[in-house]
Amino acid sequence: MTPEPHFVFDPALDLELRREVDVPPHLVWRAWTEPALLMKWFTPAPWRTTACELDLRPGGRFRTVMEGPNGEKNDSTGCVLYVIPNRLLVFTDALGPGFRPTGSAFMAASIEITPTASGTLYVARALHKDPEAKEQHEAMGFQTGWGTALDQLVALVKAM
Amino acid sequence: MTPEPHFVFDPALDLELRREVDVPPHLVWRAWTEPALLMKWFTPAPWRTTACELDLRPGGRFRTVMEGPNGEKNDSTGCVLYVIPNRLLVFTDALGPGFRPTGSAFMAASIEITPTASGTLYVARALHKDPEAKEQHEAMGFQTGWGTALDQLVALVKAM
Repeated sequence: MTPEPHFVFDPALDLELRREVDVPPHLVWRAWTEPALLMKWFTPAPWRTTACELDLRPGGRFRTVMEGPNGEKNDSTGCVLYVIPNRLLVFTDALGPGFRPTGSAFMAASIEITPTASGTLYVARALHKDPEAKEQHEAMGFQTGWGTALDQLVALVKAM
Repeated sequence: MTPEPHFVFDPALDLELRREVDVPPHLVWRAWTEPALLMKWFTPAPWRTTACELDLRPGGRFRTVMEGPNGEKNDSTGCVLYVIPNRLLVFTDALGPGFRPTGSAFMAASIEITPTASGTLYVARALHKDPEAKEQHEAMGFQTGWGTALDQLVALVKAM
């Protein structure tokens, strides 16, 4: 039996988006874990996600390419840390595929999906190494960005 | 069912100590995962391991304190990534407890234990971000250091 993972949420270091949405958990999971679906909602418009690779197992590759309206490009490759299908996905950019350190780290993230009476409780967390990294992420628009992406996810799922 | 982890060993980036030892796999595992035992063999003499905490689950804390003969002290806290009891332990200092990025990373390490006819095949790997980090680890004496520690582990297990 695999032991349960150990998490620590520290409000001084971490950010959280917590919202109930009226779509079922298994479709939220599919939207997160099937690259063809993820590319349709992951990045707030007018940015777009133009590539995604996700090997859904510990040590697996998680790559996303985001492109902006003026030719900006953000190509990021991280590592899947923990997977409970339909329930929990944990990943980080501190490691790359095969758990290899990347030498730089912005965050670890967890996406927790819990069934509710009418849909899904969606809890997305970003864990940072220090308060400065948290503040930087906040200033980059964590709440708005991750919230808008979630709106796009819900709209996609409702159209499926 | 938990998916198998994904590993990549790259000879240009990584180091490996591979040796068959004549002690049983479950005692090698105990020596690695019980802090009171680990402290007895982990650091080549005259250095000593003076503290160890190991929470044996994904996201769990792995802390070791090593002290040298002239008062040197190395206090390192990392994160457990993957556990298969008696078989595989993966950890890194790129993340701390709860998968939180540390902001610095020397390596990820895997300890793989395989039963053989007369004992255990012991494969210890250190994964690095680039060739320079590998060379630095080699120059620090990876083969001698990890090899001497393994000698100490085998001697401890034989005396148990």
